[in-house]
Amino acid sequence: MRPHEARLALVCSRRTQSAWRGTIIPAPKLLTPGPLTTSDATRRAMLTDWGSWDPDFAAVTREVCAELIAIASTERDDLRCVPLQGSGTFAVEAAVRTLVPPGGSIVVLVNGAYGRRMADLCRRAGRVAIVHETADDVAPDPADLAALLAAHPEASHVGLVHCETSTGLLNPLGPIADVVAAAGRRLIVDAMSSFGVLPVHAEHPAIDAIVAASGKGLEGVPGMGFVLAPEGVLLASAGRCDSLALDLSEQYSYLTRTGQWRFTPPTHVVAGLQAALAQYRDEGGITARRQRYQANGDVLLGEMTALGFRSFLPAELQAPIIYTFHAPRDDRWDFPTFYREVKARGFILYPGKLTRAETFRVGCIGAVTTQDLKAAVAAIADSLAALGVVRI
Amino acid sequence: MRPHEARLALVCSRRTQSAWRGTIIPAPKLLTPGPLTTSDATRRAMLTDWGSWDPDFAAVTREVCAELIAIASTERDDLRCVPLQGSGTFAVEAAVRTLVPPGGSIVVLVNGAYGRRMADLCRRAGRVAIVHETADDVAPDPADLAALLAAHPEASHVGLVHCETSTGLLNPLGPIADVVAAAGRRLIVDAMSSFGVLPVHAEHPAIDAIVAASGKGLEGVPGMGFVLAPEGVLLASAGRCDSLALDLSEQYSYLTRTGQWRFTPPTHVVAGLQAALAQYRDEGGITARRQRYQANGDVLLGEMTALGFRSFLPAELQAPIIYTFHAPRDDRWDFPTFYREVKARGFILYPGKLTRAETFRVGCIGAVTTQDLKAAVAAIADSLAALGVVRI
Repeated sequence: MRPHEARLALVCSRRTQSAWRGTIIPAPKLLTPGPLTTSDATRRAMLTDWGSWDPDFAAVTREVCAELIAIASTERDDLRCVPLQGSGTFAVEAAVRTLVPPGGSIVVLVNGAYGRRMADLCRRAGRVAIVHETADDVAPDPADLAALLAAHPEASHVGLVHCETSTGLLNPLGPIADVVAAAGRRLIVDAMSSFGVLPVHAEHPAIDAIVAASGKGLEGVPGMGFVLAPEGVLLASAGRCDSLALDLSEQYSYLTRTGQWRFTPPTHVVAGLQAALAQYRDEGGITARRQRYQANGDVLLGEMTALGFRSFLPAELQAPIIYTFHAPRDDRWDFPTFYREVKARGFILYPGKLTRAETFRVGCIGAVTTQDLKAAVAAIADSLAALGVVRI
Repeated sequence: MRPHEARLALVCSRRTQSAWRGTIIPAPKLLTPGPLTTSDATRRAMLTDWGSWDPDFAAVTREVCAELIAIASTERDDLRCVPLQGSGTFAVEAAVRTLVPPGGSIVVLVNGAYGRRMADLCRRAGRVAIVHETADDVAPDPADLAALLAAHPEASHVGLVHCETSTGLLNPLGPIADVVAAAGRRLIVDAMSSFGVLPVHAEHPAIDAIVAASGKGLEGVPGMGFVLAPEGVLLASAGRCDSLALDLSEQYSYLTRTGQWRFTPPTHVVAGLQAALAQYRDEGGITARRQRYQANGDVLLGEMTALGFRSFLPAELQAPIIYTFHAPRDDRWDFPTFYREVKARGFILYPGKLTRAETFRVGCIGAVTTQDLKAAVAAIADSLAALGVVRI
């Protein structure tokens, strides 16, 4: 094998990338809802080992939590951040188990896989999930929720997925929160893919918890979730959680008392998030992040539409996070082959998550720009040609 | 500030390390039970982003799981590996919630903080924990366990911490497993700090689950736990777990069916572990790892004893993982000051975790050698002198 061939083989074999004299050969860009493409600076922040008991690491945790609170709201001073090991779903389950009493009831608004997952984890945890389901492309009507809450005085909480990542649908958080507050209930928001990109209404009096994770719109790496909640809510829920690992109230009080996580933290992931948050601030915070993603999404949707693709969601429900497209109606269409062709051209897409229609998804979040999205759509066009797909 | 001063400031400020033109300035070595000191190659493996749905990442997961099984046992072919997001404690709670039925009973052998934690998480999960407690420096007597199991026919399981990291005590896993098997019960082993270093008796018929994590003796970074269990045990426990996030049976069946984790995996942590496992194999597997740690421990214990320190544990109970020393009896002793002095000399120690005696701990695991341990004891001697501590 000649030198340039050897190098090419390395380019093709992602597993050996870091072995090649420490040089990082560009991996495909991830156009996925997280894990997503992160910056070099974020990944390089993971090159240091941290002692979990050490005051230097406590300072990292403190800074990360303060930044997350500031992103959510600068208007209320009782908001606290509880970081949690694991994926975002772990943090959603932790919020439910800590805030909704065992045997208690919660109304869950469902219009996609993540809403269904929230209802499922409530039931598995022995909480009664009262599900209000609308179609995958229909937002819940706040008036329907008001009627449901009136019929279910036993429900102490409402659970809502802010951006349904299974389609990209943006649920009406503000109007829903108003209904929840008017009914004297409390709201748990799964803001996994919207946090840091769209306002999460943390100052709304209905908010009990906002749940998100490191590896989405904040552009950190995956491995850490977090829950933002008013301090009074965390303190009042002491002793309620029927799980040691998922007890947010205990995690909060231990962290406050000692500066440390209760159990081994994912130190490198936390350090990566600290670096990602510094870049977030430098970029211009939530406004700049939203504008970049919106520009990415506009390019994606515009150029995909020009190719003939049909968006699954109506424009007014579309969040600038991930876009769902109907699969081409051509007989030569085959998603696994299409995926491989696009990947060979430098981009990783995401499969659909709907049962009633064949779709695929393209994310516009992460350390990517409109140039990347343009190149991605060009790769998609090339891949369709390679498959011989004509009818879109 | 002159150039060499600026560089020194950077050396002292770990937070800015990666900012300095990408050069990694040596951080203090961690002589802690995990997170611990990892190799450059392990950390550099985190410089790539992976799509969690991508077949390349499925291959990483598959290889990591196969390696973990091979480390545990090459003698049985029904052992399976279930990786789980979060810290080791999450995986222990997952094992209990998946394997012990809700309302069921488990005998927990306690002689330190991690045994107490296991009993605590069982109770929080609604399982009855029948605790058999011995002192922090006393191993349980298998005959006592046999009597306890005879008195508690309702207990389906026994829980044991293999190496009690709170002291470094090695519990008698083999004889305990024999008693459990003779009584027709099942054993859940928390092998967090011993896995990959000491044999975990995975081929023993009593074994229901062996639980460990990425960031201990395997020298990966923290953020992922895993459970090794016979396939029959995982399949038979389907539908039993009262937690969505912590359901090992579902995690296993989904992984088997799709090659993917159920929820977002800590991709960079998993890639780091893959690199750490390759180095583990290259070093010579469990024998070489144990020998290096034993040599580290021998140097540490020998040189600390020569300084006058008294080991908390009798030699026959000491695992070559972490060592507990009595604090000096000198009035000038102050652990926080001592910790800072030793850290300034390049090493991070660990506080004690005992209530009945003032102690501190020094780990001998991680990417460290006898040279490092010698240098650490020299740093400890220097630090004692700086404090003016004479009476040890």
